[in-house]
Amino acid sequence: MKYSKMFSNFLIIGCGLIGSSVLKASLNKKIAKNYLIFEKSKKNILKIKKINPKIKILKNLDKDLSNVDVVFICTPMSEYKKIILKINKYLTPKHIITDVGSSKLKSVKIIKKYLKKKIFWTSSHPIAGSEVSGPEHGKQDLFENKWCVLIKDNKTNLKHLKFLSSFWKKIGSKVVVMKPEKHDKIFSITSHLPHLVAYNLVKSAQDFEKTQRFDLIKYSAGGLRDFSRIAASNEIMWRDIFFDNKTNVLKAIDLFIKNLKAFKRDINFKNDKSILKKLTETKKVRSKIIKLKQDINKPDFGRS
Amino acid sequence: MKYSKMFSNFLIIGCGLIGSSVLKASLNKKIAKNYLIFEKSKKNILKIKKINPKIKILKNLDKDLSNVDVVFICTPMSEYKKIILKINKYLTPKHIITDVGSSKLKSVKIIKKYLKKKIFWTSSHPIAGSEVSGPEHGKQDLFENKWCVLIKDNKTNLKHLKFLSSFWKKIGSKVVVMKPEKHDKIFSITSHLPHLVAYNLVKSAQDFEKTQRFDLIKYSAGGLRDFSRIAASNEIMWRDIFFDNKTNVLKAIDLFIKNLKAFKRDINFKNDKSILKKLTETKKVRSKIIKLKQDINKPDFGRS
Repeated sequence: MKYSKMFSNFLIIGCGLIGSSVLKASLNKKIAKNYLIFEKSKKNILKIKKINPKIKILKNLDKDLSNVDVVFICTPMSEYKKIILKINKYLTPKHIITDVGSSKLKSVKIIKKYLKKKIFWTSSHPIAGSEVSGPEHGKQDLFENKWCVLIKDNKTNLKHLKFLSSFWKKIGSKVVVMKPEKHDKIFSITSHLPHLVAYNLVKSAQDFEKTQRFDLIKYSAGGLRDFSRIAASNEIMWRDIFFDNKTNVLKAIDLFIKNLKAFKRDINFKNDKSILKKLTETKKVRSKIIKLKQDINKPDFGRS
Repeated sequence: MKYSKMFSNFLIIGCGLIGSSVLKASLNKKIAKNYLIFEKSKKNILKIKKINPKIKILKNLDKDLSNVDVVFICTPMSEYKKIILKINKYLTPKHIITDVGSSKLKSVKIIKKYLKKKIFWTSSHPIAGSEVSGPEHGKQDLFENKWCVLIKDNKTNLKHLKFLSSFWKKIGSKVVVMKPEKHDKIFSITSHLPHLVAYNLVKSAQDFEKTQRFDLIKYSAGGLRDFSRIAASNEIMWRDIFFDNKTNVLKAIDLFIKNLKAFKRDINFKNDKSILKKLTETKKVRSKIIKLKQDINKPDFGRS
């Protein structure tokens, strides 16, 4: 697919960590001719302008959309409805529209409810987030060797899906196509529950520090510091994810609490055999993750 | 304190990650003249012999102890009783004895119960563990800029405490003195609960994978992979910690579950204000940890 001939104008709505990385990666691979950016934060706009003179900052989402080929929506998911209502009248079936949200079932419903008829929206989820936000952290290689999930259902425009698959591959991602139901189940366990648990652990440490009046954060190198990284993630983004993937997240919490209570019994009754079995089995997952190149193969993430 | 004049022989019992790092750090700083090692694993012995020709491997813990000045016990805590009963008759009040266990109240009780009268044991806890074990991972700089907690109670020999404090500082640690009660409370939150939660999260992912038949580990880059590192820690060591610090760990689990249920309610009832307050507050802990130099100041632990 010769992108430069097929596509001239990309519009990125919301230019934080992911939006600015899409921008930088596309610029690096020379995928589009022009880049239009719509971004609410004035601070971010100043940072984006410095990236490349080809970038045009839009003040409004209106008639410029008629010259756009591909729309990337990289805002928190709670903004989707507002954006759809703004851009609806400028959209045509030729527009390739995608978002990069971390949960899909609920957003697919909102999109179906508010998006003008005969317009296609093909959802993406690049697994490339981090605890930092903002265009200053965006990187042209952010998506390299990372999974990108593309969502397919019975309404999906296959041409658009094919274009987006090529696009994400072009900027380094490994692409997998999934139904929204499966996507939301998988990521409730591999991402949403871990984030919730990390937030909850840090919250519990804060509560303990208050009641005991111990200055304990300085001893966090024994484990807590790992969780604090994830618990520093963007609060708007994560509220949206927890609320949007509510059903799966609540189920995941129940499974987690059930297992934690079993651990508690093992400890309380010193059930040697049962606890050793668990602590040995879980070790295998790390080896699998390393083998699948989903993490760095160095002790302590190589950070020392 | 001139170590070389005061001390000639160090004995390290158990030469895994921590024991071998104590050995390498002491060799590097030329703290003792001779190093005696007692280690059960034949594989480990072969690795230790290669470190330095000065090292003497002991086959038994007996008369050699009379020439030893300092004994470092670096085995899992469940071995302490057995070791004490073996070495008791060779010990004198001049022996400086320490261990490096991660929980203290229970081990202090075992030590008091089985250690011969008039012998001193001054407990250490270097906060320098990792998910890897064995002497092949030992490093001479493992303790540099890490906290080392020294335990003090009304029976502590202050000369021994002073020596150990100098020793850990000499090999790079920052030393803090604590009562065992305070130590076990602090580390139940900053280390023991995080490990349990990580094990439990990976266990829950495994359960989910089995019931749903999804291959989800390959999507672990969204959060799960962080927890899998900690959940790959040594199972014997962690069983011992959970069992030994049972009272504090059970309380920590209860606090964690209470907070997780509150999160669940926030999600279920979409309590925007309450959830945003939590997600914003927890963020501050990360900044504090970075400021205290307890973690690397780079996104994703700098691993990408």
